[in-house]
Amino acid sequence: MAIGIGLLGLGTVGAGVAAILASPEGRHPLVGELVLRRVAVRDPARARAVSLDPTLLVTDPRLVVDDPAVDIVVEVMGGLEPARSLILQAIAAGKSVVTANKAVIARYGEEIAAAAADRGVYVLIEAAVGGGIPIIEPLKQSLGSNRILRVSGIVNGTTNYILSRMAAEGAAYADVLADAQRLGYAEADPAADVQGGDAADKIAILAGLAYGGSIERSAIPTEGIDRLEARDVTYANQLGYVVKLLAVAERFEASASPESADNNVALDVRVHPTLLPRSHPLAGVDGVNNAILVEGDPVGQVMFFGPGAGAGPTASAVVADILNIAGIRQLGAPAGALDPLLAASRWRQCSLVDSARTRHRNYVRLLTRDEAGVIGKIGTAFGTAEVSIQSIVQYEASATASASSSGAGSGAGNGAEIVVITHEVEEARFRQALAAITALPEVETVAACLRTL
Amino acid sequence: MAIGIGLLGLGTVGAGVAAILASPEGRHPLVGELVLRRVAVRDPARARAVSLDPTLLVTDPRLVVDDPAVDIVVEVMGGLEPARSLILQAIAAGKSVVTANKAVIARYGEEIAAAAADRGVYVLIEAAVGGGIPIIEPLKQSLGSNRILRVSGIVNGTTNYILSRMAAEGAAYADVLADAQRLGYAEADPAADVQGGDAADKIAILAGLAYGGSIERSAIPTEGIDRLEARDVTYANQLGYVVKLLAVAERFEASASPESADNNVALDVRVHPTLLPRSHPLAGVDGVNNAILVEGDPVGQVMFFGPGAGAGPTASAVVADILNIAGIRQLGAPAGALDPLLAASRWRQCSLVDSARTRHRNYVRLLTRDEAGVIGKIGTAFGTAEVSIQSIVQYEASATASASSSGAGSGAGNGAEIVVITHEVEEARFRQALAAITALPEVETVAACLRTL
Repeated sequence: MAIGIGLLGLGTVGAGVAAILASPEGRHPLVGELVLRRVAVRDPARARAVSLDPTLLVTDPRLVVDDPAVDIVVEVMGGLEPARSLILQAIAAGKSVVTANKAVIARYGEEIAAAAADRGVYVLIEAAVGGGIPIIEPLKQSLGSNRILRVSGIVNGTTNYILSRMAAEGAAYADVLADAQRLGYAEADPAADVQGGDAADKIAILAGLAYGGSIERSAIPTEGIDRLEARDVTYANQLGYVVKLLAVAERFEASASPESADNNVALDVRVHPTLLPRSHPLAGVDGVNNAILVEGDPVGQVMFFGPGAGAGPTASAVVADILNIAGIRQLGAPAGALDPLLAASRWRQCSLVDSARTRHRNYVRLLTRDEAGVIGKIGTAFGTAEVSIQSIVQYEASATASASSSGAGSGAGNGAEIVVITHEVEEARFRQALAAITALPEVETVAACLRTL
Repeated sequence: MAIGIGLLGLGTVGAGVAAILASPEGRHPLVGELVLRRVAVRDPARARAVSLDPTLLVTDPRLVVDDPAVDIVVEVMGGLEPARSLILQAIAAGKSVVTANKAVIARYGEEIAAAAADRGVYVLIEAAVGGGIPIIEPLKQSLGSNRILRVSGIVNGTTNYILSRMAAEGAAYADVLADAQRLGYAEADPAADVQGGDAADKIAILAGLAYGGSIERSAIPTEGIDRLEARDVTYANQLGYVVKLLAVAERFEASASPESADNNVALDVRVHPTLLPRSHPLAGVDGVNNAILVEGDPVGQVMFFGPGAGAGPTASAVVADILNIAGIRQLGAPAGALDPLLAASRWRQCSLVDSARTRHRNYVRLLTRDEAGVIGKIGTAFGTAEVSIQSIVQYEASATASASSSGAGSGAGNGAEIVVITHEVEEARFRQALAAITALPEVETVAACLRTL
């Protein structure tokens, strides 16, 4: 039973999908049932990595969506519009959709899911998170018996590449970024990657699947790596940690027990550079790789690791989704009936907890006067604010560090650097403590403040 | 729509499954549709970790299989019989089956799959490999667009625990095994684990799914860790490797290109202690954890990591399978229709390649006379046999090592140990070279021979 595929976009991922469909030998036999019917491209004359029958190419994407020979629409054009509208039009036409578009799903996922549920079609998004790593389908189809406690991941390959090199070479962020851009690991405009927006898109998607309810993408506290200094990566390393850009969605512990409060789950969702103990399963994930750690009851910790981007891996995930839809079609079920696991409709309310109430460990680097007793005063100030400290270490401040502290205060060149790692503390209390410490005459500035696992 | 579940067995995994079904709150809402109808146990009077309505318990498993209120039969009793017969009886009664029984599936998988396909029911086995790690479903539902090149895994937690401790403590195999038995990480009869049989069961199952054809379980070359010496773990470590019990199923490279020879794929499948470079993704998997690395075109390398055993993780996987069947039932498809991905029927022939033709790197430890020129002679002998060497290192043989060499030959106490790591070489040629080296008057014995990645 041939199944017609329509492609919106023929960039690297689209070409990768077309290449798989054109060479079914040695893959699951269902791949051989998929027939590429129509492909929307901006410029049909452009040379491409994959050779396609030129009569398949059209410039108007509506011709793909409306083609009666197209059963499944694959959106790999990217961007918010016209991608969102085309996805909705395909749904309205009764066609299941496969998309790699994390930005659209993170922002309009609820609207799209509601339309798909109404029309009885699937919108599958395995390629939107983690490139080739199976993570969306396992969350939907293999972990549904669990109460999910935490999902944490390295979900942006560009920033992980930069952080891996900063750690290995002690290099500065700006230098590594420039090199990554030269090598094609970072975009000319790297904002979405380095400021954490891409990771926030992805954790919004993962949280929705893991907890069964949508959260507001724009409300996710997001901090990137673009202000991270090399010395903090180095100090973290000396203290037994590696710095990773983590995207985290966890149940807020102060909320009721996992069994209760079932209809409104409070989540602590966030993206920020994080110190991980070197023994943490995510600490060894280097370069452009991604990994997602899922913690649930009763499964414990399971981790999914692999290439987070690239034409081949992403196309693998897109075709996996197509195969899932194709496999279900073979059943001959009544039109409009949906497998609730694959459809992954929302089944409860989720809300973001006020971040002032969340609890974390913290790494703080202070620039201070180089005087006897400073460590004692800082320790006392944290203690007065009821913040317990795991370690406090004094380093000699170099000229570089003093320069980056905006030269405020007394004789920066002669200052000291003090790094504090706290035990877990409520964010509001920690901020209070930090305000009190900043007010000490010996403390020039808070040069860095990072979350710590 | 309530779905009736019948349990065969109420040991640790069965009790874990019952506990999930009894507490659906906070899990996927489909869990709430599952109703435990009947449970076969050996001794209904026995005290159990989970409290069940005693009227559900029966001692005759046929009463579970035949109960018309039971839609899905869950076999968690273990052992070959009566498990195999009960699975076949459930299939004959038109019921889908979920089982955690790797021994039955590795040996009778083909018979069981054929019966299930005939009757139009599913037999799902996520819990049979990797405990709670989603690996069976991702192989079936997320990686079908790939040509699989290699599946390699740490799939036995007991041996990984023993190897991790041998590496960390330099301890002897027998001592760590005894300790593992005391701590409950190893069975009183550890043969299936330490001799590699359990890992061979699991790689047989993974190979069938990854390559789409069954292989003969009994023909898998299998070597356990029961003759591994602590000094080899230590030397490997000094040379930059860790020793893991790997189960591997890879396409035989000398066979035709991935695209061709589609109907008969030659596989190199094996289980043996293996030296992994410390940077290998599987090298950091310690303790009772499992991990499976899948390499495919175009996905590249993806890895699945987590707890390889235990009541909770294994029950998580069993209930995942139940949910998959329950989800498909919601579609109202005609009876007997199967999703080809979930059913995972075989689609080509696979055969095991003659192991003499396979190619590997090797670690060899030789006990030799402590004379000038021995390294040269060994190097020359390998060279004459056209085996290239990556490294050759001489150690002083301790009294212990000499004793374990069965005291053959000249003044063992004064001997030397020479460790050779070869480049990749055909197994037959390597064995020839080893025979020539053993014949050298300076070489007392081949004390260890391990594969190396």
